[in-house]
Amino acid sequence: GFAKVDHYRAINQGFPEVIFGLGKRPEQTAAIFERLTKTGLPVLATRCTAEVYGAVKSKVPEAVFHDLAQAVTLRVSEENEHPLGTIAVVTAGTADLPVAEEAAVSALAMGCRVKRIFDVGVAGLHRLLSKREELSEAQVIIVIAGMEGALASVVAGMVDIPVVAVPTSIGYGANFGGLSALLGMLNSCALGVGVVNIDNGFGAAALAATIVRSGRRDIGRSQDV
Amino acid sequence: GFAKVDHYRAINQGFPEVIFGLGKRPEQTAAIFERLTKTGLPVLATRCTAEVYGAVKSKVPEAVFHDLAQAVTLRVSEENEHPLGTIAVVTAGTADLPVAEEAAVSALAMGCRVKRIFDVGVAGLHRLLSKREELSEAQVIIVIAGMEGALASVVAGMVDIPVVAVPTSIGYGANFGGLSALLGMLNSCALGVGVVNIDNGFGAAALAATIVRSGRRDIGRSQDV
Amino acid sequence: GFAKVDHYRAINQGFPEVIFGLGKRPEQTAAIFERLTKTGLPVLATRCTAEVYGAVKSKVPEAVFHDLAQAVTLRVSEENEHPLGTIAVVTAGTADLPVAEEAAVSALAMGCRVKRIFDVGVAGLHRLLSKREELSEAQVIIVIAGMEGALASVVAGMVDIPVVAVPTSIGYGANFGGLSALLGMLNSCALGVGVVNIDNGFGAAALAATIVRSGRRDIGRSQDV
Amino acid sequence: GFAKVDHYRAINQGFPEVIFGLGKRPEQTAAIFERLTKTGLPVLATRCTAEVYGAVKSKVPEAVFHDLAQAVTLRVSEENEHPLGTIAVVTAGTADLPVAEEAAVSALAMGCRVKRIFDVGVAGLHRLLSKREELSEAQVIIVIAGMEGALASVVAGMVDIPVVAVPTSIGYGANFGGLSALLGMLNSCALGVGVVNIDNGFGAAALAATIVRSGRRDIGRSQDV
Amino acid sequence: GFAKVDHYRAINQGFPEVIFGLGKRPEQTAAIFERLTKTGLPVLATRCTAEVYGAVKSKVPEAVFHDLAQAVTLRVSEENEHPLGTIAVVTAGTADLPVAEEAAVSALAMGCRVKRIFDVGVAGLHRLLSKREELSEAQVIIVIAGMEGALASVVAGMVDIPVVAVPTSIGYGANFGGLSALLGMLNSCALGVGVVNIDNGFGAAALAATIVRSGRRDIGRSQDV
Amino acid sequence: GFAKVDHYRAINQGFPEVIFGLGKRPEQTAAIFERLTKTGLPVLATRCTAEVYGAVKSKVPEAVFHDLAQAVTLRVSEENEHPLGTIAVVTAGTADLPVAEEAAVSALAMGCRVKRIFDVGVAGLHRLLSKREELSEAQVIIVIAGMEGALASVVAGMVDIPVVAVPTSIGYGANFGGLSALLGMLNSCALGVGVVNIDNGFGAAALAATIVRSGRRDIGRSQDV
Amino acid sequence: GFAKVDHYRAINQGFPEVIFGLGKRPEQTAAIFERLTKTGLPVLATRCTAEVYGAVKSKVPEAVFHDLAQAVTLRVSEENEHPLGTIAVVTAGTADLPVAEEAAVSALAMGCRVKRIFDVGVAGLHRLLSKREELSEAQVIIVIAGMEGALASVVAGMVDIPVVAVPTSIGYGANFGGLSALLGMLNSCALGVGVVNIDNGFGAAALAATIVRSGRRDIGRSQDV
Amino acid sequence: GFAKVDHYRAINQGFPEVIFGLGKRPEQTAAIFERLTKTGLPVLATRCTAEVYGAVKSKVPEAVFHDLAQAVTLRVSEENEHPLGTIAVVTAGTADLPVAEEAAVSALAMGCRVKRIFDVGVAGLHRLLSKREELSEAQVIIVIAGMEGALASVVAGMVDIPVVAVPTSIGYGANFGGLSALLGMLNSCALGVGVVNIDNGFGAAALAATIVRSGRRDIGRSQDV
Ligand SMILES: Nc1ncnc2c1ncn2[C@@H]1O[C@H](COP(=O)(O)O)[C@@H](O)[C@H]1O
Ligand SMILES: Nc1ncnc2c1ncn2[C@@H]1O[C@H](COP(=O)(O)O)[C@@H](O)[C@H]1O
Ligand SMILES: Nc1ncnc2c1ncn2[C@@H]1O[C@H](COP(=O)(O)O)[C@@H](O)[C@H]1O
Ligand SMILES: Nc1ncnc2c1ncn2[C@@H]1O[C@H](COP(=O)(O)O)[C@@H](O)[C@H]1O
Ligand SMILES: [Mg+2]
Ligand SMILES: [Mg+2]
Ligand SMILES: [Mg+2]
Ligand SMILES: [Mg+2]
Ligand SMILES: [Mg+2]
Ligand SMILES: [Mg+2]
Ligand SMILES: [Mg+2]
Ligand SMILES: [Mg+2]
Repeated sequence: GFAKVDHYRAINQGFPEVIFGLGKRPEQTAAIFERLTKTGLPVLATRCTAEVYGAVKSKVPEAVFHDLAQAVTLRVSEENEHPLGTIAVVTAGTADLPVAEEAAVSALAMGCRVKRIFDVGVAGLHRLLSKREELSEAQVIIVIAGMEGALASVVAGMVDIPVVAVPTSIGYGANFGGLSALLGMLNSCALGVGVVNIDNGFGAAALAATIVRSGRRDIGRSQDV
Repeated sequence: GFAKVDHYRAINQGFPEVIFGLGKRPEQTAAIFERLTKTGLPVLATRCTAEVYGAVKSKVPEAVFHDLAQAVTLRVSEENEHPLGTIAVVTAGTADLPVAEEAAVSALAMGCRVKRIFDVGVAGLHRLLSKREELSEAQVIIVIAGMEGALASVVAGMVDIPVVAVPTSIGYGANFGGLSALLGMLNSCALGVGVVNIDNGFGAAALAATIVRSGRRDIGRSQDV
Repeated sequence: GFAKVDHYRAINQGFPEVIFGLGKRPEQTAAIFERLTKTGLPVLATRCTAEVYGAVKSKVPEAVFHDLAQAVTLRVSEENEHPLGTIAVVTAGTADLPVAEEAAVSALAMGCRVKRIFDVGVAGLHRLLSKREELSEAQVIIVIAGMEGALASVVAGMVDIPVVAVPTSIGYGANFGGLSALLGMLNSCALGVGVVNIDNGFGAAALAATIVRSGRRDIGRSQDV
Repeated sequence: GFAKVDHYRAINQGFPEVIFGLGKRPEQTAAIFERLTKTGLPVLATRCTAEVYGAVKSKVPEAVFHDLAQAVTLRVSEENEHPLGTIAVVTAGTADLPVAEEAAVSALAMGCRVKRIFDVGVAGLHRLLSKREELSEAQVIIVIAGMEGALASVVAGMVDIPVVAVPTSIGYGANFGGLSALLGMLNSCALGVGVVNIDNGFGAAALAATIVRSGRRDIGRSQDV
Repeated sequence: GFAKVDHYRAINQGFPEVIFGLGKRPEQTAAIFERLTKTGLPVLATRCTAEVYGAVKSKVPEAVFHDLAQAVTLRVSEENEHPLGTIAVVTAGTADLPVAEEAAVSALAMGCRVKRIFDVGVAGLHRLLSKREELSEAQVIIVIAGMEGALASVVAGMVDIPVVAVPTSIGYGANFGGLSALLGMLNSCALGVGVVNIDNGFGAAALAATIVRSGRRDIGRSQDV
Repeated sequence: GFAKVDHYRAINQGFPEVIFGLGKRPEQTAAIFERLTKTGLPVLATRCTAEVYGAVKSKVPEAVFHDLAQAVTLRVSEENEHPLGTIAVVTAGTADLPVAEEAAVSALAMGCRVKRIFDVGVAGLHRLLSKREELSEAQVIIVIAGMEGALASVVAGMVDIPVVAVPTSIGYGANFGGLSALLGMLNSCALGVGVVNIDNGFGAAALAATIVRSGRRDIGRSQDV
Repeated sequence: GFAKVDHYRAINQGFPEVIFGLGKRPEQTAAIFERLTKTGLPVLATRCTAEVYGAVKSKVPEAVFHDLAQAVTLRVSEENEHPLGTIAVVTAGTADLPVAEEAAVSALAMGCRVKRIFDVGVAGLHRLLSKREELSEAQVIIVIAGMEGALASVVAGMVDIPVVAVPTSIGYGANFGGLSALLGMLNSCALGVGVVNIDNGFGAAALAATIVRSGRRDIGRSQDV
Repeated sequence: GFAKVDHYRAINQGFPEVIFGLGKRPEQTAAIFERLTKTGLPVLATRCTAEVYGAVKSKVPEAVFHDLAQAVTLRVSEENEHPLGTIAVVTAGTADLPVAEEAAVSALAMGCRVKRIFDVGVAGLHRLLSKREELSEAQVIIVIAGMEGALASVVAGMVDIPVVAVPTSIGYGANFGGLSALLGMLNSCALGVGVVNIDNGFGAAALAATIVRSGRRDIGRSQDV
């Protein structure tokens, strides 16, 4: 075969099987997707176009397409019954939505509850300030912003919760494809910020879910005592 | 002579004579400084070490040294009697102070009133929010910040006043000598931000004073009608 | 809804409602545009293709398309009856026109008078020198140039008026998408230059209009005395 | 005073008071340090030379100097009695030690247990493979590496624990001051990696401790039910 | 003619004639290909689309298309009868396959035996560790990886065989078109790594084959003694 | 010996012997200098400190030190009796003088007449415009400028004479060690500009002298006819 | 009109009228072209597609299209009757031909004789070495090379003639759009090299022709004596 | 202890023990050096100052200092009795010598014969062309060059032997610390070039020796048959 499917599990128990659609042909993604359905676990394919979804659907009719997120899923619902924890997904602008939805769908697939807080960029602070309560209820906050990426610093300064910062390529000119937001987030003057690659909504969700799971496991340990 | 002093006036009436100390030998700066004292106007020399000040003082005993700003002045006082207008100088951290003081001293030398608002970076928003009133009384706000430079966006979002943004080289690692703050400010999602060179406190003051004077001139015109 | 329209007002009283068309679907822009018409204020949508204009026009027939500027407007005319002040829009070459027209249309929408001075790049200085009079009548000058961006320095050296410098991505090879002009303008040896993002005609107009309004407000204050 | 001390607390309850020594004069750091001793909390000053320590010690004789970490502390011991959780600090080479010790001392100051696993770079995998057990006992793993920074990917691939990756400036030539390790970590093919600024051991500890605390808080919540 | 064919031989005796298809029109490539068939040596054209292959095939019907490698060959078979030596071609992910196949086909064309070891990236080390035996049988190992390119360091640390490292442009965001893998490989902490240009599978094969031939020649010399 | 002196002549007949002092120890430079005196030709050593001059002088007492240019010469006078042609050396500011003097001394050593036109940067155009006559008398113009490097474009636009543009590292912040001037000059909108390396006064003179000699040789040819 | 045609002449007497086709619509270029035909001088339009040529031809039927050069000309022939001088156009590879032809056509249009020496890159030195004679007959040599751009250094080391170096964007990966060749040429260890922008064949011809004319004018002066 | 010495052996049998002196204190290097002497193998410490040598010598009196190479060795002689093979070390200029000597000493320590060919840069080709014979006798050629790094391409074009290219930081301005030579070598138009990090003479030797050993091993295998 053209790819070793068995190592998809390597990631971890509890995690969905994940297919990275970029650079794969529709039939390839569809074939892997079909095989993964047999595990009984949730299945997630990111970076998929509508055309890829077509190919998957013809093999796995129950597969669902997440238009904005450009993701195809199976056995992933908007509300997990026994969520591992809550991840807030926060964006600066509406243009960051595709990345945010990739993060949200991925976090759902990984068993978390997701709270979306969109379009609260720092140019109009009142929008963000009114969300302080909601933010403080999450175990992890994913902050997604392009242009200067200042939202990560402001959010991290407001709460004492781990912030996973995702720079986006949104902007133009001297944003240099997301470099401005990336550097902004890496140089954040606030504490508690970890940065992932530009536009990497999926990676942010994976880190956030790992953090949530790491906390849960400790619960077990603590209760053992 | 080693430099043409007469063109220092080119800048404009009302402006002080300015000497850029960087790369000049102490005696050179002192010699130009002495000649400029004869104009009766304020004199300003930026980027001067204590050693340069020594050389100037031996020729012009009334010259004043601004330690933090690394500036030497004559006929520049902390309060202008008939200020052209008010310039707020705002910094994110205490490490930005040298640049802020270069801006402040320069603005004073150019005939403005200066209001200093220091150490109000975005990691602790309450500090900045409590200054909204003070900010709104300025004709121009100079925002000085290193690291991710997010302060410029937040300030510009709070008020409807021109913001002159000065990225500083404060920070380390992926700040790349001020590049992170520079790109952050150029990509600001807020409106009304003009950016100057990294660490260029003097240039920020010159732009701010030009804006203030531009407004004053219009007053004259309006009153003519 | 897919976007919070109310915060478009955040910008300021007197400002038009502004829609940033990039990355929005035609129907989205059209829907926001329609809603904004109800405010009675001017409406401005930037970065719109002819196709977007089609979508807007089918909902708001009086909407106007500015071809070169790639902007759609309502209640914006080439001559404001009571202009807040005059903004000169100056370009180095004809290829800079789209950015210049975005700036011009935006400045008109914000209530200013606009004076266009195009194609006066520094390779043939006589073209620029013959415009000194016109330049000196503006309250703010927007200088738009690609390639080496030298025009900003030369204009700022000629007048004592704030210069808003817009680097453009015009050029090829080692212009690196506008970086050459951007760095040129940030390192200007002339005083009174504030830089905005590459190709950001709208942002330049917003800064220029903020400067003009800042001056007007001071008139009020002065006259109060 | 030259700095607002009260906002040092902003970080959070349970956190030590932290002073960033870079760019402060010895007496400044010493003065802030002395004031902070009054809170009864641990005190931590990073980026301090031996000279700075001298200044602190003359005011606070019990202050301790951590030579490799370039940190000065008070009430910070190598073993916390009731640690919040365990943070593993892993380095690729011995040259990464200063950054690792800054992280370790900071994590101790924030109430965590620290496990040091040094000099296990990927050029000799057996060194790392023999540490799998130790690694899997941590709640968070801080991976510190210069040159190509590959260690972060390899560690994150071995365990299902959040990895905080710190690129260091160790190396020469085309490492461009840590850029190679930074880009390597941002582009990690492994899941669960969050990146902080180059050489930012303190920032890594702050993120790690925030993650650990976030998990603890959830224990409380879970137990409430 | 539009190109001097004779110098294609300059490369060396034993080497195939090689055509670099990029930027050539189909007929051009086809014409050169046809001429080269007359030498009796293997012929190799890289960077060829299916369309180019069509043009070649119409002139040289026996020409073979290597779909993944985007290469057209003549007299190149998957197994050389008297191979000069063995080159292992190792990839981190499936997305690196096109570059790997360009390397493999080129190495075959140059008279080597090729052993493909694909999809053994460092995020799941067991995949790579299980190949140690196979790796150690090669005279040269070509390691092909995108993203952070860590595979080169890990492989070079496992064996005492020359590693030719090929960074690929696979990835997105802060991979900057392959820069992250390139810098990672140049800064490898392991010994015995030589780097070629991003995505340069052919160049890697040429270096690897030169190494193999260099060893063979020495055999001759040694046996002379 | 530690260096092959004979190839210093390779440059060309009519050229002086040139020693590049950077990275050589004083005695090394002195030794080469002494040997070169025997040729009877002019001798030029660039990038020499006063200390190096001391070492040279102790061996070749007639050697002359050019303080600003950091050059040591023999048989080079400010006025060549039969100059090959005239090279104008033009600078934007006084800080560019060291580079300008390196160019001037080198051009003199290569047999040209040199006309210095200093401190005529574009922020005050009248200074440059008053030199049009002088400029137009040169066969080649060397334009030396830091910061935005706009002077090259303006000069090249004024005259129909080859311009050799030398970006300097003068400036700070976003000049990135001369990159801003370098990109400005490479992207010049004026015709007839050839760029050399940052701060490379000697290289500019070598190109200028080659141009002058190339013209002279043609005179010979033309007169033959 | 949409562009000021009269300033096209600013360049200089003897020069053709030049239109830069990039970013102009076919009808625009055609309209300017038609107007310029009235001057009686040669006309040159660069960066024109076949479509643009169609538009020009329908207005100016005698216009000629230079396919490789992407140029349209009028009154430009391959051989000038009384050439100002000879310019050699040298390329490293066949992929550099479009830039080379832009240079060649431009040089012809400016009245020079052109000698083409193509495909003599440094990987096979004998090709270049066999052209020494031809090279030495030129007044200026334009060297056009992509990838590492080493050809400029080697040519400049062979002759004592001004070299105008044109880096091209030919290559891939770490050539970063021509940056590798650009830096290579700027850092040339050979003397007498002036660099123009990446892919700027026209600019190279303009500089070369200016050099040739500068030499001619001196002939006049010399003969006056 | 402060470093795990046992893994120094990991590199391979036959290799010397290597200490990387950068960032180690003199006593640290001396202590490791002393311990390594007990292995009976050659010992090599790179990046050592004279001061470090002093510390080593006081513990290991027979240790030898290689001034130019900044290396300390034990049991390494200029001529190996039974060399594994011959490595040519070629430099462009004399300023590249320190890197070349680090490579040479390292190669000797690894059991190879070394042939030095210095100062044969491409600006004077005859120097290099006269060495063709010598070059062709090596099993591997290490090419060391700064500035534009063109030497690697020219050498690789001359011979059919693996070239290990070492870019050096020699140069100034737009060499950007060795970036120009690095990019030049990575984009080499010649075949058979593998690149190592900037100034990495040791790494080049390690790769070259690995290549030589790889060839030797094959001899054994071949003879087995
Ligand atoms: N959007 C994404 N960005 C980065 N990595 C991803 C993304 N989606 C999936 N992946 C990773 O890609 C791997 C699958 O790659 P592949 O073998 O090419 O399907 C999975 O193990 C995921 O960790
Ligand atoms: N800190 C500064 N940064 C940039 N430019 C400055 C600074 N201080 C003074 N200048 C400018 O430098 C010019 C004087 O340069 P100089 O002729 O070298 O003294 C003045 O006209 C100022 O515009
Ligand atoms: N290929 C080219 N690259 C750069 N500049 C060019 C090129 N062709 C023409 N030009 C210049 O562009 C100017 C014409 O620009 P425009 O006014 O836009 O037609 C002419 O004065 C030429 O100097
Ligand atoms: N000049 C050098 N550049 C890069 N790596 C080196 C150099 N010299 C020694 N090394 C490597 O550094 C390792 C020793 O590092 P350390 O443990 O810090 O002494 C050795 O295994 C060598 O592979
Ligand atoms: Mg926080
Ligand atoms: Mg505002
Ligand atoms: Mg001005
Ligand atoms: Mg993991
Ligand atoms: Mg190895
Ligand atoms: Mg000119
Ligand atoms: Mg030459
Ligand atoms: Mg070769």
